[in-house]
Amino acid sequence: MESYEVTKKLLEAKKKKGKSFADLGNLINRDEVWVASLFYCQASASEEEAAIISSELVLDEEIVAKLTECPSKGLGPIVPTDPLVYRFYEIMQVYGMPMKAVIHEKFGDGIMSAIDFTLSVDKENDPKGDRVKITMNGKFLPYKKW
Amino acid sequence: MESYEVTKKLLEAKKKKGKSFADLGNLINRDEVWVASLFYCQASASEEEAAIISSELVLDEEIVAKLTECPSKGLGPIVPTDPLVYRFYEIMQVYGMPMKAVIHEKFGDGIMSAIDFTLSVDKENDPKGDRVKITMNGKFLPYKKW
Amino acid sequence: MESYEVTKKLLEAKKKKGKSFADLGNLINRDEVWVASLFYCQASASEEEAAIISSELVLDEEIVAKLTECPSKGLGPIVPTDPLVYRFYEIMQVYGMPMKAVIHEKFGDGIMSAIDFTLSVDKENDPKGDRVKITMNGKFLPYKKW
Amino acid sequence: MESYEVTKKLLEAKKKKGKSFADLGNLINRDEVWVASLFYCQASASEEEAAIISSELVLDEEIVAKLTECPSKGLGPIVPTDPLVYRFYEIMQVYGMPMKAVIHEKFGDGIMSAIDFTLSVDKENDPKGDRVKITMNGKFLPYKKW
Amino acid sequence: MESYEVTKKLLEAKKKKGKSFADLGNLINRDEVWVASLFYCQASASEEEAAIISSELVLDEEIVAKLTECPSKGLGPIVPTDPLVYRFYEIMQVYGMPMKAVIHEKFGDGIMSAIDFTLSVDKENDPKGDRVKITMNGKFLPYKKW
Amino acid sequence: MESYEVTKKLLEAKKKKGKSFADLGNLINRDEVWVASLFYCQASASEEEAAIISSELVLDEEIVAKLTECPSKGLGPIVPTDPLVYRFYEIMQVYGMPMKAVIHEKFGDGIMSAIDFTLSVDKENDPKGDRVKITMNGKFLPYKKW
Amino acid sequence: MESYEVTKKLLEAKKKKGKSFADLGNLINRDEVWVASLFYCQASASEEEAAIISSELVLDEEIVAKLTECPSKGLGPIVPTDPLVYRFYEIMQVYGMPMKAVIHEKFGDGIMSAIDFTLSVDKENDPKGDRVKITMNGKFLPYKKW
Amino acid sequence: MESYEVTKKLLEAKKKKGKSFADLGNLINRDEVWVASLFYCQASASEEEAAIISSELVLDEEIVAKLTECPSKGLGPIVPTDPLVYRFYEIMQVYGMPMKAVIHEKFGDGIMSAIDFTLSVDKENDPKGDRVKITMNGKFLPYKKW
Amino acid sequence: MESYEVTKKLLEAKKKKGKSFADLGNLINRDEVWVASLFYCQASASEEEAAIISSELVLDEEIVAKLTECPSKGLGPIVPTDPLVYRFYEIMQVYGMPMKAVIHEKFGDGIMSAIDFTLSVDKENDPKGDRVKITMNGKFLPYKKW
Amino acid sequence: MESYEVTKKLLEAKKKKGKSFADLGNLINRDEVWVASLFYCQASASEEEAAIISSELVLDEEIVAKLTECPSKGLGPIVPTDPLVYRFYEIMQVYGMPMKAVIHEKFGDGIMSAIDFTLSVDKENDPKGDRVKITMNGKFLPYKKW
Repeated sequence: MESYEVTKKLLEAKKKKGKSFADLGNLINRDEVWVASLFYCQASASEEEAAIISSELVLDEEIVAKLTECPSKGLGPIVPTDPLVYRFYEIMQVYGMPMKAVIHEKFGDGIMSAIDFTLSVDKENDPKGDRVKITMNGKFLPYKKW
Repeated sequence: MESYEVTKKLLEAKKKKGKSFADLGNLINRDEVWVASLFYCQASASEEEAAIISSELVLDEEIVAKLTECPSKGLGPIVPTDPLVYRFYEIMQVYGMPMKAVIHEKFGDGIMSAIDFTLSVDKENDPKGDRVKITMNGKFLPYKKW
Repeated sequence: MESYEVTKKLLEAKKKKGKSFADLGNLINRDEVWVASLFYCQASASEEEAAIISSELVLDEEIVAKLTECPSKGLGPIVPTDPLVYRFYEIMQVYGMPMKAVIHEKFGDGIMSAIDFTLSVDKENDPKGDRVKITMNGKFLPYKKW
Repeated sequence: MESYEVTKKLLEAKKKKGKSFADLGNLINRDEVWVASLFYCQASASEEEAAIISSELVLDEEIVAKLTECPSKGLGPIVPTDPLVYRFYEIMQVYGMPMKAVIHEKFGDGIMSAIDFTLSVDKENDPKGDRVKITMNGKFLPYKKW
Repeated sequence: MESYEVTKKLLEAKKKKGKSFADLGNLINRDEVWVASLFYCQASASEEEAAIISSELVLDEEIVAKLTECPSKGLGPIVPTDPLVYRFYEIMQVYGMPMKAVIHEKFGDGIMSAIDFTLSVDKENDPKGDRVKITMNGKFLPYKKW
Repeated sequence: MESYEVTKKLLEAKKKKGKSFADLGNLINRDEVWVASLFYCQASASEEEAAIISSELVLDEEIVAKLTECPSKGLGPIVPTDPLVYRFYEIMQVYGMPMKAVIHEKFGDGIMSAIDFTLSVDKENDPKGDRVKITMNGKFLPYKKW
Repeated sequence: MESYEVTKKLLEAKKKKGKSFADLGNLINRDEVWVASLFYCQASASEEEAAIISSELVLDEEIVAKLTECPSKGLGPIVPTDPLVYRFYEIMQVYGMPMKAVIHEKFGDGIMSAIDFTLSVDKENDPKGDRVKITMNGKFLPYKKW
Repeated sequence: MESYEVTKKLLEAKKKKGKSFADLGNLINRDEVWVASLFYCQASASEEEAAIISSELVLDEEIVAKLTECPSKGLGPIVPTDPLVYRFYEIMQVYGMPMKAVIHEKFGDGIMSAIDFTLSVDKENDPKGDRVKITMNGKFLPYKKW
Repeated sequence: MESYEVTKKLLEAKKKKGKSFADLGNLINRDEVWVASLFYCQASASEEEAAIISSELVLDEEIVAKLTECPSKGLGPIVPTDPLVYRFYEIMQVYGMPMKAVIHEKFGDGIMSAIDFTLSVDKENDPKGDRVKITMNGKFLPYKKW
Repeated sequence: MESYEVTKKLLEAKKKKGKSFADLGNLINRDEVWVASLFYCQASASEEEAAIISSELVLDEEIVAKLTECPSKGLGPIVPTDPLVYRFYEIMQVYGMPMKAVIHEKFGDGIMSAIDFTLSVDKENDPKGDRVKITMNGKFLPYKKW
């Protein structure tokens, strides 16, 4: 079964059961974004986590097996066409070099890890229009010299 | 004067004066990332903001004029080669669709604005290695129907 | 069911019933272009809108369900090959920077929203050859400073 | 002199004289967007038009000569990085096929000309935020059969 | 049915009946190249034309219906790999700018229409090797000023 | 001296002397399109041809030398952005495969040479709008079997 | 049947019969490389050639029919990933311009035909390691002037 | 000094002295194609070879130094636009997979080296038109197993 | 059967039997990375090696046959999206030219063979976090002069 | 001063002084590959390291300043054209997925760091031809769950 089929089956099962990503995250003590990453085959669950989700959503064995594999990661085209996803690409185009400059000023030569990393999405109520708050938190990795 | 030359001159003047982006931000009541965006010709300053920065860094008139223009935005190649900037591209590749799913679950059909938007970079001290915390905050824009 | 299959089924049902996009738009009080966007899986309908269209075109439940999802948006190749669609790409290549200059002159630094946005297509009769009139109307979003 | 240098000189002269694109358009009875197109070397002026603009902005002869040539048209990268210009690319990605469907429904097989074509930018005041209105008007060209 | 399948079915029916594109063109008073364009789903026939071709080649109703739609046009890769088709790309690479210069010298600023346009292929017998003669004929469209 | 500089100098000299490509072609018994190709460094002249043109346009020796070299051919981007040149690309996209089918029907497996090849541009007066007529004539090259 | 399926069927039949490309070439008096080109749908056989190969390999009628068509030529990605094929791309990157210089020195302005062209692959035994010898032989085509 | 400047200087010196690549090759006992490769900065000469060529063509010391460096190799665009060079790309597109099949049949799994490799260009006189003969000779490298 | 299906079947059989790549490598005296390459259709086995693996994993005949063919090599997109694979691309972007400089300093003009080549992956235990050690070993191939 | 100019100056100074990368590495207790990375502006030196190298090679102050900056990393085209560098790209194309499979088998889901990473180049003498040995050593980073 290809990854996009696994995703489709998972999303259908979730919809049928009327669960949110947060609901599922609560069952296995994980953030909703991490659960969504698992649904899109971008993360791998432990056997226990897969069993709990499978039990909740009543999944086929083949899908459960896929949840515990180390997946080939990366989705979509080089430049995303979906407007919501594109905005993150645009943010990188516009604010990427400024962020690099500020990070180097604060930390020296190195990068923010995208592996030892968490990401959360919050909703901020605002009378002028609700706001999306994205928080990324990654370990700073200084360049090793040798 | 091309944008990359403006950036170069600004960075040299800042280095010579020994100022951080935060130091300059304090003078005009702006975040350090916004100041860095201005340095990379990705944002436009008011006349007053430009004057204060010019006075602090002793800039040429031509550079000051550039700071108040509406610049052509977007930096660098389609897929960034710099490892620090690439990680943000990778985050979008890996977590873009999961974020889209979570945002739609919480907000409905629409996007996070990249214009009515702020971004900050913080340093979290951690004995296992300091961490970079990026906070993005953008207005949710629901798709208009007509 | 993939989006292109949904589109195909919808177009076939519409043809069979002999309805125009405007006919369908009248039923749900929406513009014909918005209805066409819905058919191409670029917009999401409310449950009520989906029910009315489904009833008019006698659609399968699976298709109706797709109409209310938040779709992954963006169609076709990076540079369109269809001559009609290409002309809009060409207009952007030729008049994109001039439009940017005029918009900045009139509004300052910011963009026209493509989300809080409407688009209509009108036919102007003209003895020298009928004309296509496209009207785009989007909220101006000024760049936030922080 | 390369086109981008011509553009730069023209924009500087316009800024120095404090003229808007509309001011210059009034002198030669042309729309502000067409004048901006001329500044970006995407249109060609008559000798008379070039003379009036040259006189108003005090231009070098070499620049005046460029204004009357038939330029090589098309600006910027395949996918634009500037957020304002990108939004028009996104509109084509999202609404291109729907527009095609509506135009064919109203006009039959053919295209909207991008040559026998006009484009205007208007500002609509709105208490919830001003709006940008773009009007495109192009001759419908039916496909010739032979 | 996808366009490439329509093309395949049409070519098979034509081969089975032993008809040339010119034979079919004679039936509906159209040029052989236009008929070939119809077979490759790049042009749309009237109901009458579709009926005559269908009767001659004994086609399924689904294929006949496709012949009268306004198709999404454009075939093949960005740079063609087939040597015969590539040569036209090469001609554009080598002679495109020279043609532009000559057309502007003769007609002023504008383009040759590819819509109000005909194309024919003739065989010239020559003892040193037969020659292919391609004649393109398109309306000159002057750039509108506004 | 780079090719684009040679082209620029040649076009300036031609403009100064008020000569058309046809005028220059008459002096050396060549078609105007071939002369334009020479100006764009896409063809190579004999010593005699170069001398006549040089004498007519009063050229530097360095430019004359370039006219007789075998140039690196091919101009402009992969997909042309100039609307006039793009139309030839579009013609290939839309009519390339149909032309291939007709040529094979008339000639068998092989190609039209783009080397043993001529191209002319004619103006056809027409009360409904003048027309551009392009005639391409290339030797048919059958595929060799071995 | 798509070309890649034809290729697959032909290679399987050849393997089953234990024939080399040279064995098949001997039957129809053609070089082994030409036979391989036929198998990869890059060349077209005469009716007689197709009949002999069909008889030897016991092929379906549908495959035999494909062997006599004028195929759409060109295989694989823009830059080949297979190391053996890539080396020929590399040779062109490294030695393409030098070959061009030597060919022009020896022949004047023109090209080596890839149509009136043969190609053979030979094995040279060598104690230090056998060598592959590729011989290409194409007609020189001088650029026509007109 | 950039590579393309070195090439330009070398070609000018060679032209001034009226030497062919073969003349220079004779002086250092190398093939004309290898000498052309050296001129295009795709090969590196020994100190002795560089000295002999320098003496013959009267070169600057800076250029001589470049001849003995290990250059960054690879010239020109991904898909070549020059018709002569393109034909070699086309040969790879059309005959690449057939050559791969024949080489594997004769040699097993491995490649033809493009490093332990020679290439020559010969002129074959032919009353029907002279022919270009390219001979490539590279060591077969079998894939190592480990 | 396509290569990706062969890979899938092999990985499933391996998982079912609970074997590691190293286990299988021990059976045929090959490194685990080479075995993995075989599974991904990037290397070719001898008949004996294929028989041993087939016997261990209980494979279909069709899959066994594929293991002994010379495969078309190269996997995945031009720029890899999977973070683990991307890091090797990044290493080439960052350290490619430095490695080239060091190799030339130590060996002269030439390359490291990727054919006469081995690659191993080792795990180094480290209290601060285990480390991955990749060892590549390829024959140096000096550029042949001729 | 642009990075490529810094590299050029550094390489010239190194050549003039007759130092190898290893010689310079010994002075600052760093590996030769790291020193080469510094020369190609892919790593940043401490003030002390920069001072020692500057003193050894007699460098301008502007170059010394560049050595201590956090550079924008990444060199060369998307697919490298230089044969030596390309081989590493090929290795990733051919062995990337196999390495991924082996690393996951040994370490679980995660990546090899390219930041907490070292790389060395060694020469192995071999009577059948010297060999290049590349050793990469990077910290394994397991994917964080949250």
